Amino acid sequence: MAESTHFKMDLREIEFSLFEQFGLQTLFKNKLFSHISEEDARLILKEAHTFATEIIAPTYVPGDQEGCSLTPEGVRVPASLKAVWKQYYENGWNALTLPESLGGQGAPQTLGVAVAEMMSGANTAFSMYPGLSMGATSVIRAFGTPEQQELYCAKMENGTWGGTMVLTEPNAGSDVGMSLTKAVPAEEGSYSITGNKIFISGGDQDITENIIHLVLARIEGAPKGSRGLSLFIIPKVRVKPDGSLGEPNDVVCTNIEHKMGINASATAALAFGEKGKCRGWLVGGEPKAGAQPGEGIRKMFLMMNTARIGVAVQSVSIMSTAYLNALAYARTRLQGAHLSKGRPKEGAVPIIQHPDVRRMLLDMKARVEGARSLLLFTASLMDQERASGNGHGGEGYSSLFIPMAKAHTSDTAVQVSSMAMQVFGGAGYTRDFPAEQYLRDSRIFPIYEGTNGIQALDLVGRKLAQSGGALVNRFLEEQTAFLKSLGERKGWSEERSILHQAMERFGTVLGKFTMKGMTGDMESVAVAATPFQEAMSQLLVARLLGHAALIAQDALAGPAKGTQDEAFYQGKVASARYYLRNIVPHAAASLDAISGEDRSAMDIPDAGFSLAF
Amino acid sequence: MAESTHFKMDLREIEFSLFEQFGLQTLFKNKLFSHISEEDARLILKEAHTFATEIIAPTYVPGDQEGCSLTPEGVRVPASLKAVWKQYYENGWNALTLPESLGGQGAPQTLGVAVAEMMSGANTAFSMYPGLSMGATSVIRAFGTPEQQELYCAKMENGTWGGTMVLTEPNAGSDVGMSLTKAVPAEEGSYSITGNKIFISGGDQDITENIIHLVLARIEGAPKGSRGLSLFIIPKVRVKPDGSLGEPNDVVCTNIEHKMGINASATAALAFGEKGKCRGWLVGGEPKAGAQPGEGIRKMFLMMNTARIGVAVQSVSIMSTAYLNALAYARTRLQGAHLSKGRPKEGAVPIIQHPDVRRMLLDMKARVEGARSLLLFTASLMDQERASGNGHGGEGYSSLFIPMAKAHTSDTAVQVSSMAMQVFGGAGYTRDFPAEQYLRDSRIFPIYEGTNGIQALDLVGRKLAQSGGALVNRFLEEQTAFLKSLGERKGWSEERSILHQAMERFGTVLGKFTMKGMTGDMESVAVAATPFQEAMSQLLVARLLGHAALIAQDALAGPAKGTQDEAFYQGKVASARYYLRNIVPHAAASLDAISGEDRSAMDIPDAGFSLAF
Repeated sequence: MAESTHFKMDLREIEFSLFEQFGLQTLFKNKLFSHISEEDARLILKEAHTFATEIIAPTYVPGDQEGCSLTPEGVRVPASLKAVWKQYYENGWNALTLPESLGGQGAPQTLGVAVAEMMSGANTAFSMYPGLSMGATSVIRAFGTPEQQELYCAKMENGTWGGTMVLTEPNAGSDVGMSLTKAVPAEEGSYSITGNKIFISGGDQDITENIIHLVLARIEGAPKGSRGLSLFIIPKVRVKPDGSLGEPNDVVCTNIEHKMGINASATAALAFGEKGKCRGWLVGGEPKAGAQPGEGIRKMFLMMNTARIGVAVQSVSIMSTAYLNALAYARTRLQGAHLSKGRPKEGAVPIIQHPDVRRMLLDMKARVEGARSLLLFTASLMDQERASGNGHGGEGYSSLFIPMAKAHTSDTAVQVSSMAMQVFGGAGYTRDFPAEQYLRDSRIFPIYEGTNGIQALDLVGRKLAQSGGALVNRFLEEQTAFLKSLGERKGWSEERSILHQAMERFGTVLGKFTMKGMTGDMESVAVAATPFQEAMSQLLVARLLGHAALIAQDALAGPAKGTQDEAFYQGKVASARYYLRNIVPHAAASLDAISGEDRSAMDIPDAGFSLAF
Repeated sequence: MAESTHFKMDLREIEFSLFEQFGLQTLFKNKLFSHISEEDARLILKEAHTFATEIIAPTYVPGDQEGCSLTPEGVRVPASLKAVWKQYYENGWNALTLPESLGGQGAPQTLGVAVAEMMSGANTAFSMYPGLSMGATSVIRAFGTPEQQELYCAKMENGTWGGTMVLTEPNAGSDVGMSLTKAVPAEEGSYSITGNKIFISGGDQDITENIIHLVLARIEGAPKGSRGLSLFIIPKVRVKPDGSLGEPNDVVCTNIEHKMGINASATAALAFGEKGKCRGWLVGGEPKAGAQPGEGIRKMFLMMNTARIGVAVQSVSIMSTAYLNALAYARTRLQGAHLSKGRPKEGAVPIIQHPDVRRMLLDMKARVEGARSLLLFTASLMDQERASGNGHGGEGYSSLFIPMAKAHTSDTAVQVSSMAMQVFGGAGYTRDFPAEQYLRDSRIFPIYEGTNGIQALDLVGRKLAQSGGALVNRFLEEQTAFLKSLGERKGWSEERSILHQAMERFGTVLGKFTMKGMTGDMESVAVAATPFQEAMSQLLVARLLGHAALIAQDALAGPAKGTQDEAFYQGKVASARYYLRNIVPHAAASLDAISGEDRSAMDIPDAGFSLAF
C-alpha cells in the first residue's frame, strides 16, 4: 500500500511563481487586497502545506480503496473524508477567498489557487466536495436574491451544507441544450421539477446534512436548446424560512458510477420529482419583464468557469506530486552502471544518473512548472481584472486563457502521471506506489467540465474573435515583447529563434483561421481546434517558463550567488531551455500541419473508418 | 458492466496487411511453409476470430473484476480462464506456429502474430499465460538437451504444463546482472537453487498441474554481472524420468502484486529453495569446456525477443479494439448539431459527424494501422530470414525493428486507449465501457519486457551499429526507394516533401550519433535515445502506411472500383495522408531538437530538480 506521505509539494516552487514571477505582493497594494501582506500569504501557504500533508493526505489511498457506496439511506463516502471536511471548514480554508464582509479572508484568487493546489494534491477526490460547493455558493452570491443568499449561503460557506452543479443528463452531456428536465410553476413562486441527471459530483453524500443543488431545467413552454434553460436552487432537504430543515425534497440518488479513479468522489445519478414532490426556486427569482432568454446558462457559466479553473488546479496538483514522487524514487532506486564512470562499489547508481531518466525528470519538471504558470498567470489576470474593476463580465483578457488552462493542464496531468509511472518501472504499475492512482485519478480531467475538445472549440470559435480579436492581439504583443527581451540576453539566441519561428507560424494560422471564418468554412477551423489549442498553450508556456528563467538568471547573477538556492535557479533555467528546445518545435510542427490544411479527417467517408463496425 | 462483446476486430484490415501489403502468400511458396495455402490462412484467421470472440472475450471483464488471489494452496486465477486455456490447447491454437515435426501446423510467424492479435484483443491478460509458456518452451526446444526436450516440451506444448520466464529480483529489474539468486552443484547434475524473484507473470496459477520456470541464477564462483548468469529449468513440481510428477520442488509463491490492470494475470513473487530443496537443471546441460561466459543471458534473450514481439502483439490488439469500440460509439451516440447543416429532426447528430471527433478517430485509425504494419513488417522479416536460412543468430535485419516494435506499439497502445476514452467522454471513465480497462491494461506494455527506455538504448547503442551499420543502411535505402515511388504518383507531392525533409534530418542525426560514438560522448546519444526511437518508428510507419495507400489507390483504380470495398481503400489513403501530414512533422521536430544537442537534462544539477525531495 502506498505510504500516506505520498503527497509531495515543493513550497519553494509555489513561492517563486507567486512572488518572484507573478508579483502577488503588487496585488496586495490594491485596496481590494490591502489587508493581506506578503508575510501573511507566505504563512498561509505554509499552513496549507501542513494541513494538506497531515490531515488530507492520509485519506488518499484508503479513500480510493474504500470508495463510495449506495445504500438505502443514500450514498456513503469514505468515513475519513467526513473528519477532514469538518477540519477543513473549521480551520477556515473555505473562507480564504471569501470577502471579508462574509467573514472570509478576502484573499486574491491567485493565492486561493496556490492553496487549492496543495489541498487537491493531497487528495484530489476529497477536494472536489468543497470545491464544487464553493462554486455553487458563488453563483447564489452572484445572482441569488438577498433572501436566497441569506437562506442558503452562510451554511454552505461554513460547511454545514454542501452544494453541487447539476447539468448532465443521459442524452445531454456536451450537448446541454438537449436537457429534458422540466420545471412547472407550483405553489408560492416555486417550481415542480421532474427529470433525471447523471454524473453529478457530490450529488449525494453523507458528509453534510443537506445538499444545495444548482440545476438546469426548462420551464414549460420555454424555447428549445440551451437558451431555454433556467437555473434552479433545489435543496435535497427543503429549507424552512427560518433556515431549519423541513421535509425531504424528492431528490433521490438512483445510482453511483463505478469509475477508473477519483473513487472517493461520489458521482451520482439523481432523480428529481419521481413522486411529484420536488420543488425548485429560480436563482434570482422570476426574471424581470423583457429579460433575454439564456440567463440560466449564463449563470451556470460563472460556475463552469470556476469549475474549469478547478480542474486546472486538480491537474497541476496531481502532476506536481507525481513528478516529485518519481524524483524521490529516482534519487534512491539503485540500478545499473553510470554511463561513463561505470559501477560504484555499491554495485549500482541511483537511476537519476541515467540520461534517459534525467530526460524524463526534466520533461516532467518543465511541463509541471509550465502548467502551473499557465494556471497562475490566468488566476492573476482574473485578480487584476477584479482589482481594476475590469472583469468585462467574463470577457476580459483572462477569459482567453480559461480553455487553455483547463485543456492544457489536464492533458499534461495525464501525460506527466504516465511518465512518472515510467520512472518507477514495474513498481509503478503496482498499488504499492501512488503513480497508478495519480494516472487513474487524473484521466477524468480532460473529460469533465467540458471535454478538452469543447475547450478547443471555445478557444477557436469564440475566444479568438472576442472583442474584435483584442484578446489574441494582446497575447501576440506580449509574446513579441518577450521575444525581444530574450533577444537582449546572452546565451538564448537558439531558443529565441525557435520560439520566433513558431510564433511566425502561429501568425500564419491565425490569418488562415480569420479567412476561413469569413468564408464560413468552419469545418477546417474545427478540425484543427485541438492541435491549435495545444500549440497556443505551448507557446504561452514557453514564454512563461522563459520569463521565469530570466528572473532566475538575474538571481543567479546577484542575490542567489553562492547560496543553496543556486541549484533551484539553475533548475529554472534548465526547465525553460528544455521546453524551448524540445517542446516548442512540436508546437511549430502542429502549426505547420494546420497550415497545410489537411482535410483527410473530413474527406474520409464514414464507412472508411471501418466496414465492420 | 461492459458487455462481453467488447472485443472488436476488423478482419478485413488484417487480411489487407497480410495478403495485399506483406505478401504472406509469397512466403507459402517457400518449402518451409509450402504445406499452407492462402485459403488455409484465411480460414485460420476466421476461426481465430470466432474463437477469440466467442470463447475468450466473455472472460475479459469478469477476469478483471475477479482478479487473482493468493491462498495457502497457491494462486487462484479467475476460474473462467481455466476453461478457456483447455479449449485453446484442445483447438490447437498453441500449435499454429509449432513445426509439423512436433505435431504443429508449422505456420509462419506473421500468421501467428495476426492470430495472436485476436486472442490478445479478446483478453490480453489471458493471452499472457500461453504466450509466456510458448516462449519458455521454445527456449528449451532451441537450447535444451534431447532429454530435456522430451521430458518437458511436449507437455508444455499441449497445455498440460505451463512455463514462465524468471529474471527480475527486487534489486535487479532493468539491471538483471545484479541478480543474487544462487546455484550450487547438487546431486546428479542438478543445482540447488536459492533466491527470490518478483514480477513473474504466471509465476503461480491453478490452471496447470505443473509450471516449468526458466530461471536466471549465478553458479557459485561465476563472474559478477549478467555474463555470470546461467539459465536453469526449475519445475514447480519435480518431474520423474518417466515424465510423471514427483515431489514439490520448494518453489513458493510468497506474494502477488496488486496492479493497475491485467488483473487476471497473476504477477507472482517466488521464493526458490527456502528449505534448501529446490533443484534446477542447466538448460542444455553443463557447458562445453571453453564455453564463453554469458550463455545464460544469451539463451534468455531468445525468449526476451519473443516476449518483446509478444508485447507488440498485446499493444496492437488493445489499441485496435479500443479504436473500434470508440468508432462504434461515435456512430451511435447522438450529441450536438452538425457544424454546417445544423440539427436534424432527431435533435442531434451522431458524434462521428463532429470534426474534432473525426480527427480523433482518424488519428487512432492511422496509429493502429501503423503500429500493426510495424509489427507485421518485423514478423515477416523474421519469417523471410528463417525461410532463407539467414537468421544471423538474431542479428538479421529484423533485429533492428524489435526495439521499435516493442516501444513504439506499446507507447501507441496507451495513447490510443486514452484517446478512445476521450471519444466516449464521461461514459468512458466508467466501468460500463471497456475503454478504462484498455487503458489500465495497456499501461504496463511500455514497462515490462524491457522498459521503452531500454529499448531505445538497445536501438541507438547496439542496433544502429550492428553489422557495421548495415541494418540501418538497408533501412535508409528502403525509405529512399519509397520516397521515389511516392514521387512517381500524382497527388502526393506535399506528403513526399514532408517525409523527405524528415528523412534528411534523420540522416543528420545518424551522422551526429556516429561522431558522438567515435568521440566516446555516449551521454549525448543516450539522452536522445527515446525521442530518436520515436522519430525513427514514425518514419518507418509513415512509409508502411504510405505503401498501403499506394496499394489502395491501385485497387481503387482497378478491382475495387464501384464495389463496397471502395470506402475501405479510401480509408487506407486517409490514414496515410493524415499520418504523413500530421505525425511526420513531429518526427522532424524531434530530430531537429536532437540535432540541437540540448544538454539541459545532463547539465541541471541533481539538486536543481527540487531542493525539497
